[in-house]
Amino acid sequence: MIACLFVVLLSIAFSTGIQAADLSSEPGACPLPSWNDNVAKKSIIDFVTMVTKADGPDLVPPAERIAVFDNDGTLWAEQPMYFQFFFVLDRVKTLAPQHPEWKTQEPFAAIIKGDVKAALAGGEKALGQLMMATHAGMTSEEFEKIVRDWIATARHPKTGRLFTEMVYQPMLELLSCLHANGFKTFIVSGGGVEFMRPWSERVYGIPPEQVIGSSIKTKFELRGSKAVLVRLPEINFIDDGPGKPVGIQMQIGRRPVAAFGNSDGDLQMLQWTTDGNGPRFGLIVHHTDAEREWAYDRNSSIGRLDKALDEAQSKGWLFVDMKKDWKTIFPDIPIKN
Amino acid sequence: MIACLFVVLLSIAFSTGIQAADLSSEPGACPLPSWNDNVAKKSIIDFVTMVTKADGPDLVPPAERIAVFDNDGTLWAEQPMYFQFFFVLDRVKTLAPQHPEWKTQEPFAAIIKGDVKAALAGGEKALGQLMMATHAGMTSEEFEKIVRDWIATARHPKTGRLFTEMVYQPMLELLSCLHANGFKTFIVSGGGVEFMRPWSERVYGIPPEQVIGSSIKTKFELRGSKAVLVRLPEINFIDDGPGKPVGIQMQIGRRPVAAFGNSDGDLQMLQWTTDGNGPRFGLIVHHTDAEREWAYDRNSSIGRLDKALDEAQSKGWLFVDMKKDWKTIFPDIPIKN
Repeated sequence: MIACLFVVLLSIAFSTGIQAADLSSEPGACPLPSWNDNVAKKSIIDFVTMVTKADGPDLVPPAERIAVFDNDGTLWAEQPMYFQFFFVLDRVKTLAPQHPEWKTQEPFAAIIKGDVKAALAGGEKALGQLMMATHAGMTSEEFEKIVRDWIATARHPKTGRLFTEMVYQPMLELLSCLHANGFKTFIVSGGGVEFMRPWSERVYGIPPEQVIGSSIKTKFELRGSKAVLVRLPEINFIDDGPGKPVGIQMQIGRRPVAAFGNSDGDLQMLQWTTDGNGPRFGLIVHHTDAEREWAYDRNSSIGRLDKALDEAQSKGWLFVDMKKDWKTIFPDIPIKN
Repeated sequence: MIACLFVVLLSIAFSTGIQAADLSSEPGACPLPSWNDNVAKKSIIDFVTMVTKADGPDLVPPAERIAVFDNDGTLWAEQPMYFQFFFVLDRVKTLAPQHPEWKTQEPFAAIIKGDVKAALAGGEKALGQLMMATHAGMTSEEFEKIVRDWIATARHPKTGRLFTEMVYQPMLELLSCLHANGFKTFIVSGGGVEFMRPWSERVYGIPPEQVIGSSIKTKFELRGSKAVLVRLPEINFIDDGPGKPVGIQMQIGRRPVAAFGNSDGDLQMLQWTTDGNGPRFGLIVHHTDAEREWAYDRNSSIGRLDKALDEAQSKGWLFVDMKKDWKTIFPDIPIKN
């Protein structure tokens, strides 16, 4: 009978374990194997332990365990340019045969010739033209398939990896740690929301409804009896800088307790998150590893970290030094796809 | 030892039961006690059973079990006018002492005198003025508190119930049934998103991040070192009619498998949902009970059901006849608050 009791207790422990992921306030496992045993790793574990301790003074109810993550430069790399722009370049080339006029029309002509710098000399207007030509005009489901097909095969020019293999292994482990402790994680990115949704669940475990990003307008149409949403060449929302707290409120409707970013585009998201009452956590990924990744901050045109670098100390935001704090940067490949 | 085995099996069964709510594909309990044993109840249970049957041909993976609900007239009553408008009236009266100019300025003067009809004679412009005067100018957190305080005490002029006690008991049971079967439920309402979020989780079990609604613009500001979002007197998004599929795509990013509405404002949401591939479910609450609630459809200015009434049959959407299909309309009070 003692053996029986033991088995029953085991079963109960197992059943409690299942609950823990969603409901209980017992801290789940956070091994973070790719993190060196430095202050950064300890700070993360301390925060998670603090807000999940069942009878602790800083317990955050599971429903309020909202964590927001920038994407470019925080969850995956962003050099030598935002990965979404590689998508734009590839799409222009793919679509060029249907647009003979692009041969003589900038910024398209330059891109077809392979001269990205010349194409971007046209500044924001040129960028807008490229975005709309490649992101609008189709239905939402057609666009989803275009992204899905592209991301399955497109590779980074320097590393030769799939772009989805250029996510940061330590951040994947951090996401798992938060998920195991009842956190709901959201991406809050300046990138296009519909560019991220087709792969965010597979790669990060973050479902489409927890992705916030920039968007163009869409319009509902009946084509015959078929219901579609058509993507229009008109900006709807820019989810960057002061737009990030706005996007968070629009889509989540409550203030996060933890925010993770890497650039000045994340400054207001960090301010908004960590200014709330109760325990809060702000983290900045600092790109310090020119050998294994890239090293950049104040002077980079992509992912500039300047104002947020100045403000981090007074706000108590945690700096992650990629070179010192991360054992590995990218996942071993082949990763699960 | 046989007794022991029995206890262990019970424990395992119990642990499986816990999983069912989130992960498994075993149909959970759907007693729907306030539903009469008619076609409507059977159709709901059949659909839920079909899409959750583990080895069935129509299994919908838990991540894709997205169900969308209109609010006014579908989850709670909407007569003699949208409940949010009672909030507007009360706010105008509360704010009037700070706005002496309103005494002679329409539409405010009419409302202060208690003449709602005269106030609304100004049409959309008057309504817009009233909305902005009562919904903009404060921070998002101040507005949340205003709504929370109002909804805790404001009562319906005819029934004397709190507005949150005028939710439909059979629909609460339907929400529970879906939650028990791994569905993620969203409100998709023409009403203000920040008017619903402060009480949607308590009343419906639907958290703020699963509420989609109309909105005004907000702006991020630092007031000293304090981070706030200020509500601006400018429309951001109207989540009604063809706006509903747009709002669904913006916030959820995938097509729902089930949609629940009651009026022409839900027509496109029903079209968008039920036009998807695989098993789909569309339901229209038909207000047929003048005695226990209200009876209205084609000729009502609030919650008009006309085009969707014509289209329902060819689309196979289920009609719920409130008079015949529902044993009770509202919850027994006092309900849990």
